[in-house]
Amino acid sequence: MEKVGIGLLGYGTVGSGVGRLLQANAEAIRLATGKQVELRRVLEKNPDRAALVPQGVAVTADFDDVVSDPEIHIVVELIGGIEPARTFQLAALKAGKAVVTANKQLLSQHGAELLQAAQDAHTFLRFEASAVGAVPVIKVLRESLAAAEVTSIMGIVNGTTNYILSAMADTGAEYAPTLKKAQELGFAEADPSEDVGGKDAAAKMAILASIAFHSRVRLGDVEYQGIESITDADVAHGKSLGLVPKLLGVAKLLDGRMNVRVYPCFIPNEHPLAGVSGAYNAVFLESDSFDKLMLFGPGAGGTPTASAVIGDVISIVNTAPGGFIRNCGCYKDLGFYPDAEVVSRFYLRLHVADEPGVLAKVAGLFGEEGVSMRSMLQTGQEEAAELVLVLHPVKEAAFLRALERIAALSVVRATPSFIRVEGDYAG
Amino acid sequence: MEKVGIGLLGYGTVGSGVGRLLQANAEAIRLATGKQVELRRVLEKNPDRAALVPQGVAVTADFDDVVSDPEIHIVVELIGGIEPARTFQLAALKAGKAVVTANKQLLSQHGAELLQAAQDAHTFLRFEASAVGAVPVIKVLRESLAAAEVTSIMGIVNGTTNYILSAMADTGAEYAPTLKKAQELGFAEADPSEDVGGKDAAAKMAILASIAFHSRVRLGDVEYQGIESITDADVAHGKSLGLVPKLLGVAKLLDGRMNVRVYPCFIPNEHPLAGVSGAYNAVFLESDSFDKLMLFGPGAGGTPTASAVIGDVISIVNTAPGGFIRNCGCYKDLGFYPDAEVVSRFYLRLHVADEPGVLAKVAGLFGEEGVSMRSMLQTGQEEAAELVLVLHPVKEAAFLRALERIAALSVVRATPSFIRVEGDYAG
Repeated sequence: MEKVGIGLLGYGTVGSGVGRLLQANAEAIRLATGKQVELRRVLEKNPDRAALVPQGVAVTADFDDVVSDPEIHIVVELIGGIEPARTFQLAALKAGKAVVTANKQLLSQHGAELLQAAQDAHTFLRFEASAVGAVPVIKVLRESLAAAEVTSIMGIVNGTTNYILSAMADTGAEYAPTLKKAQELGFAEADPSEDVGGKDAAAKMAILASIAFHSRVRLGDVEYQGIESITDADVAHGKSLGLVPKLLGVAKLLDGRMNVRVYPCFIPNEHPLAGVSGAYNAVFLESDSFDKLMLFGPGAGGTPTASAVIGDVISIVNTAPGGFIRNCGCYKDLGFYPDAEVVSRFYLRLHVADEPGVLAKVAGLFGEEGVSMRSMLQTGQEEAAELVLVLHPVKEAAFLRALERIAALSVVRATPSFIRVEGDYAG
Repeated sequence: MEKVGIGLLGYGTVGSGVGRLLQANAEAIRLATGKQVELRRVLEKNPDRAALVPQGVAVTADFDDVVSDPEIHIVVELIGGIEPARTFQLAALKAGKAVVTANKQLLSQHGAELLQAAQDAHTFLRFEASAVGAVPVIKVLRESLAAAEVTSIMGIVNGTTNYILSAMADTGAEYAPTLKKAQELGFAEADPSEDVGGKDAAAKMAILASIAFHSRVRLGDVEYQGIESITDADVAHGKSLGLVPKLLGVAKLLDGRMNVRVYPCFIPNEHPLAGVSGAYNAVFLESDSFDKLMLFGPGAGGTPTASAVIGDVISIVNTAPGGFIRNCGCYKDLGFYPDAEVVSRFYLRLHVADEPGVLAKVAGLFGEEGVSMRSMLQTGQEEAAELVLVLHPVKEAAFLRALERIAALSVVRATPSFIRVEGDYAG
């Protein structure tokens, strides 16, 4: 039986998961490919990790040992970060080896260069595990939906923020103590800034939007905003309106251009994404061809991510030689749709003076900018008086113009807090 | 550019959808495959349908015109039913053509024969659209999760029953008028028996279980039960317990054997499947490798199903020649796990005499069979007195033995109604 050799760069949580799955599921992989896929070499400098590599597999601290091994056909890069991962991937591709990676930082910043290198060498670059862990959304987008024009992607693509927002909605607690608890439970890193600030989600959305829209989207093209400013008051008001808070990656195709952003928003209880709670991830896709599709699953974790890596390995073994990789030459160049022109629904909370005529002033300014209100709730009194508004869909520029004028009103006591509402809100 | 010719059998709703998508998305398909995929011939005897075939595509009433055309590489069978679809597929495969089909009846009854024919001819048989419409669950199972041992599949795989049960839960209406309304709205067929009786779901589960467990499951191996006996009273009681009714296909791997069934059941509100309402479908998978994954989308409809067919076509064009098809020789033969041994949770509603000691009698009989109760609710009085019980997980045989004895009690007024509870019920 034909053998396919694997070289694995990095034997940390995901790497050792790949090593374990390759051994434990050797028979299943043989059934799935008709070939014997075997781990030949591992690049790992850390002796504690190196000690975990199965017997019979060579361990090295020198990348050249991997790239120069003619019996290694696929290099799996699980080191993470930009360098030396980038140099290693480029060298492996140049040597004609296929590359599988989970490296979202690298893909979202240097994806074009790497895909070009794969194309030039007539080989493969696969990166399912870089987006939504075990959820095979890249494969589905690239293969099952290749002929469908995807018009919208909404993704819960960061488990840490989803865990925190779910917990805030369940318990009514504030952001800071909820983050602390998430850290204690291992659902948030000691330095959670890339997660809670939205950058992790932005990198994943850059990758997903590139694949879905067949156009280049880099991390730098994705504007992102985190969940740090979501308050328990907003979460509670949302609940009373039938809305749950989520950090969403939203990528839309509007008039043939792309708008890709990450922001906290409210979605209706009835929306399929609303039920995706805790550390789970999900991607919700829309298209005229297939209506709506959602994929849900664990977005992180050693074994689920390793499972996605194995899926890519199998996919490479089963793909036609010279088979298609959606690559440099085949990309469209769609350009970006300006945020200001995007039509959105908004939730808005205003801390106001408890006096007559406040609502009239706010409504008046909104009216002048063509913004109309869908619902209004006035709560508290005196110093705690608040106006909670949900607006009809409106161009963001008009909303922000009106908001600036409203914030300047003397009856408005603090910086207004607003949250977009995604999904079809009928409440 | 290399051309790939398509022969299409049947130009009804799905067939014309395929014709339309092949034309409308020609550029996207070229990007996805590097080849020019074109519709060459359509087999369609109905003149009204034949008139819809695009100009330049030959229409014929003779299958031989299709199978003998050397420039047709892929035959798409959308006639449905067993014959002549079976004969056509076998002839196409024997002629070395790849076959794509949406025919769940044929696949779930003659899948082994067809897959063997594909293997013998070193060609492909693909049938994504036969299971869950646009939801690419077969591809995900066969490729992304090929190395993961799937241990459980729970599927909402019939849109008609999901629409009816969702509507009953929303409105509190009874089954019969809800079915009638579903028929008026086009969500149920004039003869809905295969849908509401569970046979349609059983055929789809046979296909999904075969792929997931790498073992043969035929329609005849799947015991199925429909939703006709679900009452508004059960739905209402379920609601008060935090449970929603669903017709589920449930396939489990238990001690290395398979148990594949279709039955109405309750699932907790918090379960991801609970939010799948209306005519949507979803498949929920569990495995040690990836924890939980769910795929959600439209289970039927001309364009979504056509989109799945196109996905299969692209997949064939992109798969290595002689590339792997999970086929005859590669199947395990797992055998079936007896229903009686399966451990399930049960909801049970008893119409009882309104007199003291009824609960004690019921509890006593359950106790003798080792069945313990988790919660109890007594409602109504006199002729309408009811006991609603939720039991702790129990072997089905023990439950059914106890139930038989309880049904025979003089204080039990009517045939007891029971419903399984799936998903982790903590309520």
